[in-house]
Amino acid sequence: MIKPDKSSAQLTEGGQLRHLLKLEGLTREFIASLLDRAETYQRPIGATPARDTILQGHTVANLFFEPSTRTRASFELAAKRLSADVLNLDVNMSSRIKGESLLDTIYTLQAMQVDVFVVRDASAGIPEFISGNVQSHVSVLNAGEADVAHPTQGLLDLLTIRQNKKTLDGLTVTIIGDIAHSRVARSISVGLAIMGDNELRLVAPEGLTPDPELYPGANFSHDIDAAIKDSDVVMALRIQRERIKEKSSLMTNHEYLQTFGLTVERIALAKPDAIVMHPGPMNRDVEIAGAVADGPQSVITQQVNNGLAIRMAVLAAIMESRQL
Amino acid sequence: MIKPDKSSAQLTEGGQLRHLLKLEGLTREFIASLLDRAETYQRPIGATPARDTILQGHTVANLFFEPSTRTRASFELAAKRLSADVLNLDVNMSSRIKGESLLDTIYTLQAMQVDVFVVRDASAGIPEFISGNVQSHVSVLNAGEADVAHPTQGLLDLLTIRQNKKTLDGLTVTIIGDIAHSRVARSISVGLAIMGDNELRLVAPEGLTPDPELYPGANFSHDIDAAIKDSDVVMALRIQRERIKEKSSLMTNHEYLQTFGLTVERIALAKPDAIVMHPGPMNRDVEIAGAVADGPQSVITQQVNNGLAIRMAVLAAIMESRQL
Amino acid sequence: MIKPDKSSAQLTEGGQLRHLLKLEGLTREFIASLLDRAETYQRPIGATPARDTILQGHTVANLFFEPSTRTRASFELAAKRLSADVLNLDVNMSSRIKGESLLDTIYTLQAMQVDVFVVRDASAGIPEFISGNVQSHVSVLNAGEADVAHPTQGLLDLLTIRQNKKTLDGLTVTIIGDIAHSRVARSISVGLAIMGDNELRLVAPEGLTPDPELYPGANFSHDIDAAIKDSDVVMALRIQRERIKEKSSLMTNHEYLQTFGLTVERIALAKPDAIVMHPGPMNRDVEIAGAVADGPQSVITQQVNNGLAIRMAVLAAIMESRQL
Repeated sequence: MIKPDKSSAQLTEGGQLRHLLKLEGLTREFIASLLDRAETYQRPIGATPARDTILQGHTVANLFFEPSTRTRASFELAAKRLSADVLNLDVNMSSRIKGESLLDTIYTLQAMQVDVFVVRDASAGIPEFISGNVQSHVSVLNAGEADVAHPTQGLLDLLTIRQNKKTLDGLTVTIIGDIAHSRVARSISVGLAIMGDNELRLVAPEGLTPDPELYPGANFSHDIDAAIKDSDVVMALRIQRERIKEKSSLMTNHEYLQTFGLTVERIALAKPDAIVMHPGPMNRDVEIAGAVADGPQSVITQQVNNGLAIRMAVLAAIMESRQL
Repeated sequence: MIKPDKSSAQLTEGGQLRHLLKLEGLTREFIASLLDRAETYQRPIGATPARDTILQGHTVANLFFEPSTRTRASFELAAKRLSADVLNLDVNMSSRIKGESLLDTIYTLQAMQVDVFVVRDASAGIPEFISGNVQSHVSVLNAGEADVAHPTQGLLDLLTIRQNKKTLDGLTVTIIGDIAHSRVARSISVGLAIMGDNELRLVAPEGLTPDPELYPGANFSHDIDAAIKDSDVVMALRIQRERIKEKSSLMTNHEYLQTFGLTVERIALAKPDAIVMHPGPMNRDVEIAGAVADGPQSVITQQVNNGLAIRMAVLAAIMESRQL
Repeated sequence: MIKPDKSSAQLTEGGQLRHLLKLEGLTREFIASLLDRAETYQRPIGATPARDTILQGHTVANLFFEPSTRTRASFELAAKRLSADVLNLDVNMSSRIKGESLLDTIYTLQAMQVDVFVVRDASAGIPEFISGNVQSHVSVLNAGEADVAHPTQGLLDLLTIRQNKKTLDGLTVTIIGDIAHSRVARSISVGLAIMGDNELRLVAPEGLTPDPELYPGANFSHDIDAAIKDSDVVMALRIQRERIKEKSSLMTNHEYLQTFGLTVERIALAKPDAIVMHPGPMNRDVEIAGAVADGPQSVITQQVNNGLAIRMAVLAAIMESRQL
C-alpha cells in the first residue's frame, strides 16, 4: 500500500482538496470520502440528475488541448448541475508556443474570475505547471494528462469497483491492452494501491508493456488467459492497432480479438461474479467483444454514470476547501 | 390524404409524442395540436421570448454530424428557453466508424442523464437507428436527415402556411428547385398530404427531379411559369449549382435566376395573396430574387420565427408524454 | 480634443447607447459615465464576480468571424453574468459570400429573438453594415474590426489609465509596435483625444508606421528611448515579426527585444510611476520583456479584469437605452 504524502501541493495545509492532479498523495480515508460524496450525487440513468448550488457565482473553464467528447461533456454537465458558469475553450496550441503563452492564457482567464480550470493535455506536466502558477483561490483539475494520469477516471473506476465488490481490498484486478500509453491504467493502479492490498495483473501486447517501475508490485504477463483466471475485475483498454509491433499489426480485427481481446470464453475464466470494465471509447470486437461489452458482467455504463458523480464530488470538495 | 399510422414507434401507446423522426404516421389532429402549442410559444420579433420551466432538470444534447448554424441555434435557444441544460456536440465522425461507435456515444451520454438527443446527419436512417436503441425515458428529435426528412422544418412550414392562408386544406403549393436532394420538400409534402386535400406542384431543373414514388399525387413539371400560376404558396429551395447537369452549369447566376428562379415577374403569376417561402440559407439572386425575398409576399423571416416556436412545442410535447 | 458628434448612429435620439461601433462621436461625459458604470461591475481577482439580471430574457449572439479566445470569453462571461442567454457562433465565411449572406444570418438570428450581436471581423465596415440593417430593438457591439476599431478595448484601456493616473487629461501616452495594423491603437488614441489634452507618441518599426491622418496630433518617432522618456503610460502592441521589413526580420527575438521591445532599462526612462500596458496576447521577450510584463509597473492583468467590467457596462447601457 502506498504511503500517503501529506505534503502534496494538491492539498491545503488543512488537508482539503485544492487541486486534483493525481491520486498519489491522497489517503485512503480521503479517497473513500470522495467516493462517498460522489454517491450523494449519483443518480440512476433515467432519474432526474442531482443538482446543487455549491458552485453558484463560480466559473469553470474547460481547457481541452486534446480533443474529447465524453470527458468534456461529463465535466461540463457536472459544473452546470452545480450551478457554475462554464466556459468551453477547445484550444489548438502548438507545443512550441505553449510555455509562457499558456500561462498568459491562464492569467487572462483568472483575471475574468475563472476560478476552476479543467485541463486536458497531451503533454506531461501541464496540469501541475498551471497549478503552480495560479492564485490561491484558483483550482486545477487534471482531466487527462499524456500517459501519466487521469485521476477522475481512477476515482470513477474505484467507485464502480466498490459498488460491485463491496470492498476495495483483497481484489484481483487484471488490466489488458496498451498499458504503455495508458493514463487510465496509471491512475487506477495508484488508486488500488492506496485503497487496499490488491493484486494487479497487467497484460499488454508486445511493445506496449510499460516501464515496470511505474507499476510497483504489479504482475506482468503476456498470457491473457492465465491473467484473467480468478480475477474479480477485468478491464480492457482502448487499443490503437498501429501501435502494435510487426506481425500483430497484420492481424484482422477478429484475430486481434482472439489474441488480446475480451471474449465471452475468456471472461468465463474469471470469477463468476467478476465485473468487466472499459474506460471508453471502445473498439467493439477488437479489444472487447460486443457481447461482453453489453453482457451481464459489464459495468461500462455504470462507469460513465459514476464519472459524472465523481466530477461533481471533486468540484464540490474543491469549493469546500476554499470556505474553510 | 395519408392515413394515420397509429403504430409508429415515435408515438407512445397512449398516442403521445416520444420521438420526432418524421411526419409520416402523425394524424391531422396531432399535427394541428402541435401547431397550436407552438403558437403559445410564438412571439413577434422584438418581443420578449417565451419561457417555460418544462425542461428543468432535463439535458438536451445537440448531436450535429453535419454543420449547421441556424437549425442548431434554433434548437439550442428552444431548449434553453424551456430551462434545459444544453450540450453542443459538433462531431465529425467518418461514416466508417459510425455504426456501433455512434451507439456507444449515445449510451455514454445517456449514462450522464442526457435525455433528449437532437440529431442531424447526412446519412439516412440515423435518427431512427438511435431511437431504436435508447432507453424508455429518452427521446430523439430529427433535426435534418440526409435527403429523407426534416420534420421540424415541415411543421414550421405548415404553421407559416396556416397563419397566412387560415387553412391547410384546398391549397395549391408549388415547390421549385433541387427537389431530388431536399429533405425540406419531403417533409412539407408529407405534412400537406396529412393536413388536407392540397395540390402539390414540383418543378426541378433537369437531373434534380426526385423519384415520383416519393411524392404520390404530386404534379411534376419543368414549366416553372405554368406551375406557379394560381398557386397559394410558392417555395424556393436552395440550389447547389454544381448539381445541375451540363449546359445549365455554365449559366451565370443571372441566367439561372431567369430560368429557374423566383423573380418578381414570376411571382406575379401566382394568386395575388400568394406567399413566398424559402427554408434558408438563401442564394439571393440565384434561386430567388432579392426583391422577392424581401418583398411583401415573403414569409421567410416568419418561417424562422415559427421554427423556434415549433421546436419549443416539440420539446414540450415530448416532456408531457413522459409524465402521463 | 475631438468634437462630439451627437448625430452618430450608435446613439439614440435621446443620446443613449444603441450600438457600440467606435469611440468617435461619444462625448467625454458619456465615456466617463460608461467607465463609472464599469467600476460598479468591477471586482478584484478572487472576489465573487458581480451579477445582474438586466439582460434576463435577452439573447446575445457572439458572431466571431475571426478566431479569438480572450475577447470571446470576456463577452460571453459578461453576458452570462448579466443573465442573458448566450449563443456562440464561430463562423468561417469566406469574404466572397459575406455580403448578403451575412445579412441573412443576422435576419435569421433576429427572428429567433437574438437582440444583441457581438461581432468580430477581419474586414472593415462589417459591424456598421450590420447595425444599419437590424431592427430598432437590436444592438450591435464591435468586438474588433480589422485595423479600424476595437472600442471595448479602448474603453478598458481608458478605465485602467484612469484608475492608475486618477485623470485622463494631461498625460503622455506612448504606444510602441505594429501601429499600422492595430485597431487597439486606433481606439485608445480616439479615446484619449476625447477625454482630455493628452500627448500621444507613436513608435513603429519601419514599414509599420500608420497613415498620419488617422492619428491627428500624434507625435511619430522611430527613437523608442526618446519616446518613452517621461511617459505616464507605455503600451506595447503585439508584433507579428513577418510583417517587419527586410533586415529586422532576420533579427532574433532577443535582438528584436533590444531594438523595439519594452525592456526593464527602457521602462526606467519613463516617469517613475508610469504604467505598462499590453492588449494581449503577448509575445514575451519579443515586444515586451517577461520581467516588465510581470513587473510592478505592469497593469496588464488589470486591463483584462477591467475588460469584463467594461463589457458588462456596455451591455447594461444598451439595455437601458431600450427602456427609455
